[in-house]
Amino acid sequence: MELINLDHISANPVLPEVLDAIIDAMKNNYGNASSQHRLGDKASDAISSARESVARLVNCQDPRRIIFTSCGTESVNHAIKGIALANMDKGKHIVTTNVEHKSVINCMRFLKKLGFNITSVPVDEHGRVNPQLIVKAIKNDTILVSVMHSNNEIGTMQPIEEIAKITKEKKVILFCDAVDSVGVVPVDVETLGVDALAFASNPFYGPTGAGGLYIRPGLKIMPLIDGGAQEKNRRAGAENIMGIVGMGVAADIALKQMDERVAHLASLRKKMIDDLPAYIDEYIINGDPERCLPNLVSISLRYIEGESVVLMLDDDNIAASTRSACASGSLRASHVLLSTGMEFADAQGTLVITFGIDNKASDVETFLTVLKKAVTTLREISPLYQKEKKS
Amino acid sequence: MELINLDHISANPVLPEVLDAIIDAMKNNYGNASSQHRLGDKASDAISSARESVARLVNCQDPRRIIFTSCGTESVNHAIKGIALANMDKGKHIVTTNVEHKSVINCMRFLKKLGFNITSVPVDEHGRVNPQLIVKAIKNDTILVSVMHSNNEIGTMQPIEEIAKITKEKKVILFCDAVDSVGVVPVDVETLGVDALAFASNPFYGPTGAGGLYIRPGLKIMPLIDGGAQEKNRRAGAENIMGIVGMGVAADIALKQMDERVAHLASLRKKMIDDLPAYIDEYIINGDPERCLPNLVSISLRYIEGESVVLMLDDDNIAASTRSACASGSLRASHVLLSTGMEFADAQGTLVITFGIDNKASDVETFLTVLKKAVTTLREISPLYQKEKKS
Repeated sequence: MELINLDHISANPVLPEVLDAIIDAMKNNYGNASSQHRLGDKASDAISSARESVARLVNCQDPRRIIFTSCGTESVNHAIKGIALANMDKGKHIVTTNVEHKSVINCMRFLKKLGFNITSVPVDEHGRVNPQLIVKAIKNDTILVSVMHSNNEIGTMQPIEEIAKITKEKKVILFCDAVDSVGVVPVDVETLGVDALAFASNPFYGPTGAGGLYIRPGLKIMPLIDGGAQEKNRRAGAENIMGIVGMGVAADIALKQMDERVAHLASLRKKMIDDLPAYIDEYIINGDPERCLPNLVSISLRYIEGESVVLMLDDDNIAASTRSACASGSLRASHVLLSTGMEFADAQGTLVITFGIDNKASDVETFLTVLKKAVTTLREISPLYQKEKKS
Repeated sequence: MELINLDHISANPVLPEVLDAIIDAMKNNYGNASSQHRLGDKASDAISSARESVARLVNCQDPRRIIFTSCGTESVNHAIKGIALANMDKGKHIVTTNVEHKSVINCMRFLKKLGFNITSVPVDEHGRVNPQLIVKAIKNDTILVSVMHSNNEIGTMQPIEEIAKITKEKKVILFCDAVDSVGVVPVDVETLGVDALAFASNPFYGPTGAGGLYIRPGLKIMPLIDGGAQEKNRRAGAENIMGIVGMGVAADIALKQMDERVAHLASLRKKMIDDLPAYIDEYIINGDPERCLPNLVSISLRYIEGESVVLMLDDDNIAASTRSACASGSLRASHVLLSTGMEFADAQGTLVITFGIDNKASDVETFLTVLKKAVTTLREISPLYQKEKKS
């Protein structure tokens, strides 16, 4: 029986067109873009073309503002560490939120060791940050505000435009981790008004091993990876040409199909949320009901553990996740859910469902049937549930 | 007419077996190794298997000591910055050599900004460092010695084993940039006695976008890229599974064919050096005549510029380089050649020829014929040459 993939946020297969482009690049365009001969020229042309495609995807007016990295996490590290270290003469204070991705959180921890001070602002019960809390958190020595575009566990989208107005006025740099948004929903760096924005290729069906970073002209930022003159001295290391070429093709297709994809994903999301009450009870849908990713549904199932549900779903040929795969090495409850005010036990019962463009309405039905079975079985053996029902 | 590639150090095509493995991984194994379902297990198994292959290639006894990165340059950055920042409580002095790769040099520049002191020791006319100079350079607050395994411009191999004995005795960490050696010549981390060793996949016909770092157990090192728990908390970011799988297959083949490849490359090198006098005069062969990479010949052609030769060779369907592609963004003469005591003008006339496993003896003959034509033409129009000949 074929696996139903409802964990697209962990990994997407590449599109057939992307695969073809990668195979072609590996066979016919393996040069080093820095070389002075024709193999170098050809590689350099392919990278330029991919850069244009990626720039178009985020409505970046000049492709030179985009640099290629090895993944979204590298882009985040490059932005946060690079901006902090390049601007530390102006101050060592940074503002962020309580619901950022691990990559942002751990960059902040790194900077703390170097003497930076971090203020992390809380979010509301939907995981949204109130821009006024950012205003309050900014001090004289604040150099950077880092807020994610969309949350990878609950899908909530943040008011980046409003925050950008604040940071512009306060003359503070704004970085936006948009790894789970770019290529999934429209992202426009000009409208957003951000100074730097990180993204990755896999969320829009490009290869893993390829990411990007938008850098506003004039922004002071240090490289994360020092070495040769690649990427105009901003990211050293021989370019991952197959990754970059694949990312470019995926970006072109994502841009072309954006409206259609968003509508399809949102319809699957709506169906799941609408149909859920007919299958199970005692659950919470997490995140902002309106301002959210169209491809993500986070459900906290009371009295049971999400991990057990994921294993049972796997037995029934459905791939799902308890939270982002990036965090699965950790056994602690999701910091995102706890930040929304959720109780620890409920947070432990969370299932993150992420749709992909190939999912069908019938996948939702199959999932709900299997979920009902799993939840029923697990609650039957749950001491917590039994105790609650007796009382 | 087909291009003769004599610039393999800039970029190698991947082997057909590597291409097949990458295509298979992209089609059938696109999961996220951190996921809790079967797609994750399958990806995780593929990465483990590649890690074993790569560990075998450098004779690393335990694959867990290998972490995957996005390229050799990232590995170098991770090692140097990660070791320096994790051990700065013990001291802020680092010893390196005058002929290191740009990635090492620019990491040192980064650390200088953070208050580290760097001592760079000179090399002899062959580009070799005298281990006694390392002994002299080590001070009470020295925490790290960084010496490359082989030089990317002149091919000279350094006495790493001897240096390791010194660093062990002095209780200083030894990092070795072996990017141009691993998979090309035998490299054995146990015999070398290094604490960390950086390498990349492309030099042994694996994909670009994949590199590795050997880390001795117990070594204090900080991640370069912070975030999720991937690579046992040592390198965050979703794994580049196609790159890693390709690197593993390439490592297996490189290990199996090592002796045969080295013998073939060395025979091409010998032929070129032996035959050169019959074609041109007034040149210098750079690097150590004995302790050198088998695949590299660096020739400094007097009175002319290497750049012009490369362009003329390209017109005649031969790819060559004036130095490492990584440095080609820079117009300055090679720091490596200047460090060996070469005059600036001679350094400017340098051609770096790097053979690959597919090159044939006839490629050397074609190259020499074309080179003779280029050199004759360029010297005819060289004021320097004309002046010298008249006097």
